[in-house]
Amino acid sequence: MGQINELAKKTGSQVIAADATSEEDLENLVKQSVEILGGKLDFILHSIGMSINVRKGRAYTDQKYDWTQKGTDVSAMSFHKVMQTLYKNDAMNEWGSIVALTYMAAQRVFPDYNDMADNKALLESIARSFGYFFGRDKNVRVNTISQSPTPTTAGKGVKGFDGFISYAEKMSPLGNATALDCANYTVTLFSDLTKRVTLQNLFNDGGFSNMGVSNAVMDMVTEN
Amino acid sequence: MGQINELAKKTGSQVIAADATSEEDLENLVKQSVEILGGKLDFILHSIGMSINVRKGRAYTDQKYDWTQKGTDVSAMSFHKVMQTLYKNDAMNEWGSIVALTYMAAQRVFPDYNDMADNKALLESIARSFGYFFGRDKNVRVNTISQSPTPTTAGKGVKGFDGFISYAEKMSPLGNATALDCANYTVTLFSDLTKRVTLQNLFNDGGFSNMGVSNAVMDMVTEN
Amino acid sequence: MGQINELAKKTGSQVIAADATSEEDLENLVKQSVEILGGKLDFILHSIGMSINVRKGRAYTDQKYDWTQKGTDVSAMSFHKVMQTLYKNDAMNEWGSIVALTYMAAQRVFPDYNDMADNKALLESIARSFGYFFGRDKNVRVNTISQSPTPTTAGKGVKGFDGFISYAEKMSPLGNATALDCANYTVTLFSDLTKRVTLQNLFNDGGFSNMGVSNAVMDMVTEN
Amino acid sequence: MGQINELAKKTGSQVIAADATSEEDLENLVKQSVEILGGKLDFILHSIGMSINVRKGRAYTDQKYDWTQKGTDVSAMSFHKVMQTLYKNDAMNEWGSIVALTYMAAQRVFPDYNDMADNKALLESIARSFGYFFGRDKNVRVNTISQSPTPTTAGKGVKGFDGFISYAEKMSPLGNATALDCANYTVTLFSDLTKRVTLQNLFNDGGFSNMGVSNAVMDMVTEN
Repeated sequence: MGQINELAKKTGSQVIAADATSEEDLENLVKQSVEILGGKLDFILHSIGMSINVRKGRAYTDQKYDWTQKGTDVSAMSFHKVMQTLYKNDAMNEWGSIVALTYMAAQRVFPDYNDMADNKALLESIARSFGYFFGRDKNVRVNTISQSPTPTTAGKGVKGFDGFISYAEKMSPLGNATALDCANYTVTLFSDLTKRVTLQNLFNDGGFSNMGVSNAVMDMVTEN
Repeated sequence: MGQINELAKKTGSQVIAADATSEEDLENLVKQSVEILGGKLDFILHSIGMSINVRKGRAYTDQKYDWTQKGTDVSAMSFHKVMQTLYKNDAMNEWGSIVALTYMAAQRVFPDYNDMADNKALLESIARSFGYFFGRDKNVRVNTISQSPTPTTAGKGVKGFDGFISYAEKMSPLGNATALDCANYTVTLFSDLTKRVTLQNLFNDGGFSNMGVSNAVMDMVTEN
Repeated sequence: MGQINELAKKTGSQVIAADATSEEDLENLVKQSVEILGGKLDFILHSIGMSINVRKGRAYTDQKYDWTQKGTDVSAMSFHKVMQTLYKNDAMNEWGSIVALTYMAAQRVFPDYNDMADNKALLESIARSFGYFFGRDKNVRVNTISQSPTPTTAGKGVKGFDGFISYAEKMSPLGNATALDCANYTVTLFSDLTKRVTLQNLFNDGGFSNMGVSNAVMDMVTEN
Repeated sequence: MGQINELAKKTGSQVIAADATSEEDLENLVKQSVEILGGKLDFILHSIGMSINVRKGRAYTDQKYDWTQKGTDVSAMSFHKVMQTLYKNDAMNEWGSIVALTYMAAQRVFPDYNDMADNKALLESIARSFGYFFGRDKNVRVNTISQSPTPTTAGKGVKGFDGFISYAEKMSPLGNATALDCANYTVTLFSDLTKRVTLQNLFNDGGFSNMGVSNAVMDMVTEN
């Protein structure tokens, strides 16, 4: 928590610890946030993911199911819990914006992504499902950003991650989107300029998601 | 279980009871099936779904999370468990076929479908994820059929189901696919004629999924 | 052209007339633009569409094919011609942005949209196809915005347009995106905050595209 | 035409030559077919594609537009013309089936596929658009099959085709679908078992379309 406290100091923010799987912690988080900020919230970013099966090296075809369930709870159901807490507390401002970070393994197979693929599919579904009610009742939008593979602490746990980063770089006509690009794109989704964009899964990936194959990848392949 | 036993009698089949969330039961189911049928299996149909939140009338924005988790286990994780049991026991014949039934709420919002929408999204992701390994290692295909709303015991639990059936009928240029149409379509996916079709979610819905709006629905709407 | 000249006056812009199906006119447009602006271009918006079959009331099942071809040339091929002219003249700045406006009839059936549906599908494909080369060679991104039905001169030509606008409004949890929302969203795609977003078709539609059915639409339908 | 005449002899069929861009030829084709077969038609397969830009080696960024237009007419509009002729002559039996062959370049970028990508996107849109009217008015279904890259006369014209076939083979968990697999899959779509499947684009591709990356492709890539 060292770095996050430094960041908080620089930005004049307060850090509130919460276990995102605990309804009680989230209740406290939302209530304190509204109090500290002096009003309802304008935007929320969900950026949480974890798979015990990945960490412990269990193959997708050999899942330990209580680990799978824990991963689902942390990576996907936590997003529902955050939104349910916000919704019940009526804690979002009208035309506010909620974003969660996801990955294209929700749509297509990346074998080493393991059960995180299923967790991200569930997360994106929750965004759509809850997004309907948040839109209808509170004029709040809910979207997910599906980002290029990005070297994060979590990402580095995925087997063969470096090779994959370089494959994605060669497949994408604009190269991989960086963590900074992700932050920038998120800013546009928090801005009023996107107020009617909702229920969407938005790819920030240099074009990877709509590539069949690139010339650069074909070159790698045919060199062999 | 009365009707299923009658059906078994007519078709000369044996019924083996199993809780689809229990790895032990599934292990027994697969082993007994192989023994009774005298060899590996050619095809599997997963047709299970249940939401306690729906049954008990809890809104999507007011989930009781241990109920949600139970529904996810029964409706989606059970499919992973069935496939993991088959895979580990090497119980599928080469070019065999595995199908699960799903619903378009996995892609688009049908508010009264509640948390079953998320369960179906998870189910379809599991089909893709496991389908890769089953294809690569055993030449077995895995697909889902996304069926028109069909008056089943489970379906009838969904609020406003009758009105919705008739809306879907008017939206679909060929009308709703019936339970018999579903059985027929499943047969094609078990046949060798579709041996290279895998990782797909296949709509059997009279065209609903690719409709924006039909003239018949516009007529209903503008009559008001 | 009266209104456009007024707008030009207010914004200190120059209007250059060009037939978007004429390679010669587009060549002139690009060259003059670069000269007037004193350097390469940062962004381009393609917002052109026309169907003679729609105008003359010919059904989709009774096309006059030379009219169809003229509509395709104006509505879709014009986008290729614009990009080819820019590409060959190397007239876009690095990390520039090209956007075209489209409609969801490219993915789903809206019967009265007639052959414009096919023109928009072609337009979106051209965005992806050319977007690859523009990304790879010039670091320029190409995307389409798929907008709610918007009361424009062209839109008003579509039969039953008013009823449809109100249907879309009731289907969309955040209501229809307006022309102003479209302008605002376009601004985000011209900004550097979205520099790694490319080859995408982006829905600005209050959520319509990911709705199966809304409660408000079911209410309209079951009232009858 | 030698081989086709041999095939006709073996199957006791009659061959009727028609330029698929000519409404007159198609009118004759449909009328003669109905006469020879002694009644309305049960199924139609459209399997036509041609790009002059590909043949003559023109890059996608350097199209000769009258060639592009000719390719669009042959590869995509011909499908509309075939269906319009059938529809106006009321030449399809109820619950008949119309299929066209397509390729995934309609959704994702395969750079060497050139303007055929756009033609296929247009073809698939025409299938949906006309499929609505054919379903609503005649109970006829219209679908497209999106096939693995298959070594055909047309396919061989695409640059680097052999390397690409082998890339697709390694990406697909069940390997590439062959021409025979395509014929088999088409049979299921002509059968009554799929009578409520319409407006769909169906991938027969060993799973390629839902792969992000396979282990086999990652192995090729990281060997370098």
